[in-house]
Amino acid sequence: MAFYSADFMAQLNSHYLKLKAGYLFPEITRRVSAFLESNPESTKRLIRCGIGDVTEPLPEAARLAMHQAVDDLGTPEGFHGYGPEQGYAFLRSAIAQNDYRAHGIEVADDEIFVSDGSKCDCANILDVLGPKNRIAVMDPVYPVYVDTNVMAGHTGAPDEAGTYPGLHYLECNPDNDFMPEVPKVPVDVIYLCSPNNPTGAAASRTKLEQWVAYALKNEALLLYDAAYEAYISEPGVPHSIYEIEGARQCAIEFRSFSKSGGFTGVRCAFTVVPKELELVTDTGDHHPLHPLWNRRFSTKFNGVSYVTQRGAEALYSEAGRSQIAALVRNYMGNAAILREAVASSGLEVHGGVNAPYIWVQGPTGSKSWDMFDRILNQTNIVVTPGSGFGLAGEGYFRISAFNSRQKAEEAATRLGAMHW
Amino acid sequence: MAFYSADFMAQLNSHYLKLKAGYLFPEITRRVSAFLESNPESTKRLIRCGIGDVTEPLPEAARLAMHQAVDDLGTPEGFHGYGPEQGYAFLRSAIAQNDYRAHGIEVADDEIFVSDGSKCDCANILDVLGPKNRIAVMDPVYPVYVDTNVMAGHTGAPDEAGTYPGLHYLECNPDNDFMPEVPKVPVDVIYLCSPNNPTGAAASRTKLEQWVAYALKNEALLLYDAAYEAYISEPGVPHSIYEIEGARQCAIEFRSFSKSGGFTGVRCAFTVVPKELELVTDTGDHHPLHPLWNRRFSTKFNGVSYVTQRGAEALYSEAGRSQIAALVRNYMGNAAILREAVASSGLEVHGGVNAPYIWVQGPTGSKSWDMFDRILNQTNIVVTPGSGFGLAGEGYFRISAFNSRQKAEEAATRLGAMHW
Repeated sequence: MAFYSADFMAQLNSHYLKLKAGYLFPEITRRVSAFLESNPESTKRLIRCGIGDVTEPLPEAARLAMHQAVDDLGTPEGFHGYGPEQGYAFLRSAIAQNDYRAHGIEVADDEIFVSDGSKCDCANILDVLGPKNRIAVMDPVYPVYVDTNVMAGHTGAPDEAGTYPGLHYLECNPDNDFMPEVPKVPVDVIYLCSPNNPTGAAASRTKLEQWVAYALKNEALLLYDAAYEAYISEPGVPHSIYEIEGARQCAIEFRSFSKSGGFTGVRCAFTVVPKELELVTDTGDHHPLHPLWNRRFSTKFNGVSYVTQRGAEALYSEAGRSQIAALVRNYMGNAAILREAVASSGLEVHGGVNAPYIWVQGPTGSKSWDMFDRILNQTNIVVTPGSGFGLAGEGYFRISAFNSRQKAEEAATRLGAMHW
Repeated sequence: MAFYSADFMAQLNSHYLKLKAGYLFPEITRRVSAFLESNPESTKRLIRCGIGDVTEPLPEAARLAMHQAVDDLGTPEGFHGYGPEQGYAFLRSAIAQNDYRAHGIEVADDEIFVSDGSKCDCANILDVLGPKNRIAVMDPVYPVYVDTNVMAGHTGAPDEAGTYPGLHYLECNPDNDFMPEVPKVPVDVIYLCSPNNPTGAAASRTKLEQWVAYALKNEALLLYDAAYEAYISEPGVPHSIYEIEGARQCAIEFRSFSKSGGFTGVRCAFTVVPKELELVTDTGDHHPLHPLWNRRFSTKFNGVSYVTQRGAEALYSEAGRSQIAALVRNYMGNAAILREAVASSGLEVHGGVNAPYIWVQGPTGSKSWDMFDRILNQTNIVVTPGSGFGLAGEGYFRISAFNSRQKAEEAATRLGAMHW
């Protein structure tokens, strides 16, 4: 069989090997396990304010609809096999109508793409983008934006500080209200997350207008992650990038039922891709992105579970809305209690008003992981070290308000009593 | 703002623009709609034997488990938020134990990756593979294998016949029992689908042994799609590639609950990635693929719905197994009836014994789309034209046995009475 050249061997995607090993949440798990092994008596006292997962039961409206959907599947008439890959019309329409058109925002039903999660959407969007885009991310940042660009070969190997050459980091700090200004260097694709994970900051209308103007002028693309939209409480803060004129020409919006309807275990989210949005091809022509995203769904995806989609649809019923409102009230009540407690201990707190995350600035010179360890040891509370989200997160830690009220109150008492 | 270079503009993935427009199933939909518009009286008579979707109700065992799972989510104790991205231990273990270890095949629980569909898995696997692999596909072929390689930039634009330069097509025909021999040119990644969609052929042990030997010798990767495994009826036909010695070093297996448990609308599948399987990096080193696929799941996916996973687990219960067996019996009973009827009309039939697809060879010189139109007009039955699956499918059409018994019998009567 001499005709087989030794040069031919199946290759893996070597870009994956550039990824930093110590992913934030596994490292937290490791430290918590080690702590509990040395301090087994603390196991019952442990309160997790770390990972951003909801804790309260799934709204009844969703559950009733899901029971009905399961029953549907048990009958010849009600059986549903493959659905439309982009989502059932009943759900696309409910989303476009309730989340957009009811608020005076123009979005057509077929501009909604129903998926099994915003994490997937934020990752998969790179599939329809070209290889030569200059990518900008906020710092601190949701790690998925960074890691998926590393996997796609858009970066070099990380330097010692953990920064990836090839990515443009937009620093977020108290001076810019944790929402970056438009950059002075040209970038092509910008991930904006508002309300923000991890800082809890929400972009003002003025800031978003600047970003849309920047994108239009530079033919850049905004990837607008609004997974925490339901938590916006201040009037005047935009809920959608499409509230800004011109955004339909330059922005994709990601939203999710995970944090609004408690769907982290049920899996449903969506993207909005306006038909006016055009990017350039490798020959320099303009071409709409909508048909590419649509084709991606048809070719690489088979739609979200029928049962899940019926559950999501029910969140738009009167009962569903009021149950979502109750969930949000609970978590944001927690946020207020936790914010107050940490502030009373003398630390500077951010966020927690338009998002269920409180972003705490430690005493000058404190390191994030040191604070993580200190809090775990002193109060048996698990927080998230800010440096895990990027260089600009060093010196901060994140407290999640996703908890029962009882646990949030207990956590607040302990955190308020900490001596910094 | 003169510092923004006009060269910087957000780019789309231009490889998508190479994709052929007339995707098979949309074209079928178009022709059926046109036919019904001209012949509204045929609407009630229409029988769909086209798309490969199940038709019978979801097994009761799965429905009961899904109801229970929905109830779990309604209580503070039973609530499940984010699960492990790779699948719950209860399901990974049930799969590895029942589908593999119970049959004497070595597969560890953590080599199972639970996903929302084999289509997604077959598409996403390219993510962890390098850009320079020489890709081989069977012809006729499930279009997803081809289209995802086009999207990834592994091909040129299609020629007039619809073939993509850069792909190596392995012709399947009666001479090789519709399962290709190993090629005489070197290839790195080979998609093998057995039992096959669309031909219904299942690979013999001898043929699979040849492929594994080829892959080991050439350090090639086999992507083994066994989504129709549950339909294998002949003794001696392998159910898994891992029945072949050495396959753990060179093969990934894809399986699905779609066609066994009627899960096309519920969405659950899995891949097996053995830890021994190594590919080469861009520096020529060997590296296991398992950690890359694992990282892909952690970074780009949030796991399958808890409700769905509980439903899939229940398919392994005693009730679940017997309900799957009844579904398979029904569909394969249809296949026998349809096979017999078409054969009696004088055509040569293949498949339909280890798969729910019958692959019919038309009279010499017949074109697939002509036969599609003729069958639709004469019998009001929708089949799938073989040429839609590739050049080597020309002259064939596919009949799906996914139907109620009543419709299958009616379709058989009409097809048996056709005059070719």
